[in-house]
Amino acid sequence: METSPLGPHITVMDHLLNRLSALGVRHLFGVAADYSLQVLDRVLAHPRVRWIGTANELGAAYAADGYGRTNGFGALLTPFGVGELNAINGVAGAYAERVPLLHIAVGPTQATERAGAVVHHTLGDGDFDRFARAQRQVVCADAVLRPHDALAEIDRVLITCLRERRPGYLRVPRDVALGPAVPHRSLDVPDPKAADQDNLEAFRAAARARLAAADDVAVLADFLVDRFHAREELAALLAASSFPHATLMAGKTVVDESTPGFLGVYAGGMSEAKVRATIDGADLLIRAGVLLTDLNTGKFTHEFDPEEGIDLGPTTARVDGAAFPGVPLAAALDVLTELVGEDAATRTPTPTPASAAVPAPRGLAALARRAADSLARAEEAATCVSRTVCGPRLPLTQSYLWKAVGNAVRPNHTVFADDGTALMGIVDRRFPSGARFVAQTLWASIGYTLPSLLGAQLADPARRGLLLIGDGAAQLTVQELGTIGRHHLKPIVVLVNNDGYTIERITHGVNAVYNDIARWRWADLPAALGVADPLVLTARTRAALDSALARAVATTDRLVLIEVFTGRLDVPPGMVRLSVNRPDRARWVP
Amino acid sequence: METSPLGPHITVMDHLLNRLSALGVRHLFGVAADYSLQVLDRVLAHPRVRWIGTANELGAAYAADGYGRTNGFGALLTPFGVGELNAINGVAGAYAERVPLLHIAVGPTQATERAGAVVHHTLGDGDFDRFARAQRQVVCADAVLRPHDALAEIDRVLITCLRERRPGYLRVPRDVALGPAVPHRSLDVPDPKAADQDNLEAFRAAARARLAAADDVAVLADFLVDRFHAREELAALLAASSFPHATLMAGKTVVDESTPGFLGVYAGGMSEAKVRATIDGADLLIRAGVLLTDLNTGKFTHEFDPEEGIDLGPTTARVDGAAFPGVPLAAALDVLTELVGEDAATRTPTPTPASAAVPAPRGLAALARRAADSLARAEEAATCVSRTVCGPRLPLTQSYLWKAVGNAVRPNHTVFADDGTALMGIVDRRFPSGARFVAQTLWASIGYTLPSLLGAQLADPARRGLLLIGDGAAQLTVQELGTIGRHHLKPIVVLVNNDGYTIERITHGVNAVYNDIARWRWADLPAALGVADPLVLTARTRAALDSALARAVATTDRLVLIEVFTGRLDVPPGMVRLSVNRPDRARWVP
Repeated sequence: METSPLGPHITVMDHLLNRLSALGVRHLFGVAADYSLQVLDRVLAHPRVRWIGTANELGAAYAADGYGRTNGFGALLTPFGVGELNAINGVAGAYAERVPLLHIAVGPTQATERAGAVVHHTLGDGDFDRFARAQRQVVCADAVLRPHDALAEIDRVLITCLRERRPGYLRVPRDVALGPAVPHRSLDVPDPKAADQDNLEAFRAAARARLAAADDVAVLADFLVDRFHAREELAALLAASSFPHATLMAGKTVVDESTPGFLGVYAGGMSEAKVRATIDGADLLIRAGVLLTDLNTGKFTHEFDPEEGIDLGPTTARVDGAAFPGVPLAAALDVLTELVGEDAATRTPTPTPASAAVPAPRGLAALARRAADSLARAEEAATCVSRTVCGPRLPLTQSYLWKAVGNAVRPNHTVFADDGTALMGIVDRRFPSGARFVAQTLWASIGYTLPSLLGAQLADPARRGLLLIGDGAAQLTVQELGTIGRHHLKPIVVLVNNDGYTIERITHGVNAVYNDIARWRWADLPAALGVADPLVLTARTRAALDSALARAVATTDRLVLIEVFTGRLDVPPGMVRLSVNRPDRARWVP
Repeated sequence: METSPLGPHITVMDHLLNRLSALGVRHLFGVAADYSLQVLDRVLAHPRVRWIGTANELGAAYAADGYGRTNGFGALLTPFGVGELNAINGVAGAYAERVPLLHIAVGPTQATERAGAVVHHTLGDGDFDRFARAQRQVVCADAVLRPHDALAEIDRVLITCLRERRPGYLRVPRDVALGPAVPHRSLDVPDPKAADQDNLEAFRAAARARLAAADDVAVLADFLVDRFHAREELAALLAASSFPHATLMAGKTVVDESTPGFLGVYAGGMSEAKVRATIDGADLLIRAGVLLTDLNTGKFTHEFDPEEGIDLGPTTARVDGAAFPGVPLAAALDVLTELVGEDAATRTPTPTPASAAVPAPRGLAALARRAADSLARAEEAATCVSRTVCGPRLPLTQSYLWKAVGNAVRPNHTVFADDGTALMGIVDRRFPSGARFVAQTLWASIGYTLPSLLGAQLADPARRGLLLIGDGAAQLTVQELGTIGRHHLKPIVVLVNNDGYTIERITHGVNAVYNDIARWRWADLPAALGVADPLVLTARTRAALDSALARAVATTDRLVLIEVFTGRLDVPPGMVRLSVNRPDRARWVP
């Protein structure tokens, strides 16, 4: 029996809030509208869920995504029609990036539906399911709640979200939300480690043989380790094995980056030379929760064979292409750790000194390493994609910027890097143990990180947000800076003012007007958007940047905005490497 | 043969731009993204279509809607996936409000699609049609362009948009957009007046009999007169007949409001007494392009029978419920004008003096008039919905505000009223001849009007925008104020600062936190968003408002923002009337 803090007589909405609360949801994001006001009264009455109004529903969706990444589950409530469609891009992003959350759209009563009334927020044709059909394209489960099976449908959608680590959608007529609920059991949360035992043992045997045959082994980890809750299992494998390891961009910080075995971020031809050599050249590459996307692989410039090696997906493990379904990521990692233990027990232990954590190059790895060394020298010489387009060198370069920002990251920081030079720049930097990283490298919706920070900071106030975002991206969702201020959050915002969409200029249209944006006075915006007593700093030189970052890190009682000026065509070193390594494939655009 | 300004060798995108140009499109709104950069080069190369980058794609959609309302057709181009989903709410609004426009989403090449590649802006599952399926829910026609039938599909979608006065959607792989086009004919634009002649004559006979039997006739016109291009035909009928007439809110300014026959805006129980009495009490009510929605009818408090009278829809006319399909609105109005002429020719002409344009009340009309008079007295006494919630009277009331704003409207102004107190307040004011009105009364998506003004001002620079918007609504789309500034547009913005969602407070949750918003420093925003040299004024008193409005109207060389402070619970007279007339139905929420 579910015990409700609201007593035995509760509404469907009360029950839904109880369910969300049981999943760790303490904040519900959204925008109020006339259809939902009485439903929102249930939120205000709930003892454990707080309403967080955003300026636009897109901000609510991104905030719920940031919340879900931090807390395991997020939720937003939007107005039927208008508001839910404002949110749909953010919900689609959660689908692509595997973030479980629930989107609740509250609309007219069933009586209004049955009458086919021409009411506001509809298309005037009596079809109340149009928007649910649109939302269905970007969620893993959806339902229109009806009194006879509302509770069962809520659980079906929530459980599917938990299993698939993706968003769900509920269209809720107001009267159904306010109708009575008689809950009779708690949510049957799936066990993420439950495995098919036969397949698990078959995987163990195949992996044992594969490991025994490998001269050198490397591990590549990605964001699905985070989403499928396998961080601890991965850490155990790395601790037991001393395998050199890297992450993809999307998976940055799923491993402790302060250990000697950590190579850095792997991104195909965009990677630093040593990372590429070790990952591409390994005899056996173990991939944990990896999704090979265009941005994550430097536009598919990875050189390992994705059909070979040990590949651990969310629920299926593969050894040299042979699939073992029903073997979840965390369980498969446990198996590998056990196998490494078996191996160690039969050998003389050879402790690995920190300086030798990366195995000496052998075979293919040695060849790759040599190639990489020559590329590294070319990279040193390059300062931007092309001298002809870069013009005179500015005092503060992207290369310097991201080094300095990387050095400013503290163990309790969560770094939010928006798509563009911020993402491409910061991924090279090694974070201290404990620091976390948030980005959208598959959905890649610019402007995502600003509201995501709002959600993440509310989810875990002990962590400080460090937002890295370009001027073009920030224009999409800037209004939520006001919401961040309204809730007295104190992040650091590094706003890269480089006069437009630099990453696009480098791709195509260096001086085209479509890569220009309106020029804002960023320094004036926090106060204009109601942020109380913000600390606003400007950096046009290396010294000013160093000073601003030091002040920002030390100033923990205020929101800090650092407006950093870099050249219109200056790009981070990773993008230089890609253009040097693979000039024919240096464009992002498929 | 189509002659192209780009010569005989053109791309599909060039051809599409030619088609749009032929429909009056001179500006294409949107946000650039890597998939579309080379396609945007075709826009920059086009001699008659200009690219207008917005801060967010939602702004682009609203701008295209405002453009389409002004110019007859609008267009936006967004990035596949992320950007097109940001725009979907704005496109849905154009569907509800019958604005023809084209939404072009440019995405990966067909080769990428065929490979099922995991590229950015997808959900990573190789399904490239998900977003098109979502968009299909909010457009009247859609297509995925392929080389073999791209031109035919473009025309099919455009013609459907023109016929239905609704948006269309094209998903365009980049390589298809850049592929060759061999156009062979011009667009076969449908004739909006083409009628089924048999049904037209049958309608004429039925209408003749109905008119002859009526003692007093009134006309109610709505927004479909604008969308189906029947303004002139309606004006001719009103000039020939001297029938008293009103519009619904959505149809405000489809008739000249300076003539004596104009009663005002009709909105059921929200209407001024005289308007209600004449419309509800007429023997024969002619409805031209009317859609009876909840907001437009004061929550369905109209008292005429929608099954009776003469009802002229977009393509079907009805007389006492008998339908005559294939009789377009403009053609049906011409018939009525002819019938009035026949009638006048057989009678002694009785010229109607201005003061007697409204016929003396008879029968039902007289009864309704008496009821209305007593309500008018009650209304005079009321200052807000309830004295207990209103608190002390503020010096500047909503009642005064909208009178003053109404008096400031000039013949070359287009007034944009966002949903909420701005819309409910301004509709009572009679505009000078020539002034236009834009609002979303069915879709009712708050924040719509700000970018809509951007589009409309570019469509017709000779008109000046007068934007009336509340603080809550403006927070959704505020970034496009920067776009307005970037293009040196000089509208007047009346920003009603009443500390949150007042229209919702009045509906439910007077002091609930969900009706609060972040408190912004509105006066600082135009400059922060890059508007050059804005004139920013503040009004907390009647005298300050009068002075500010006078300065704003006289200052035509700068953007003017007037921040007006009104009470949190102060509402316009129309909402007072609704609560007095129909206290049981004064809520908006179905």
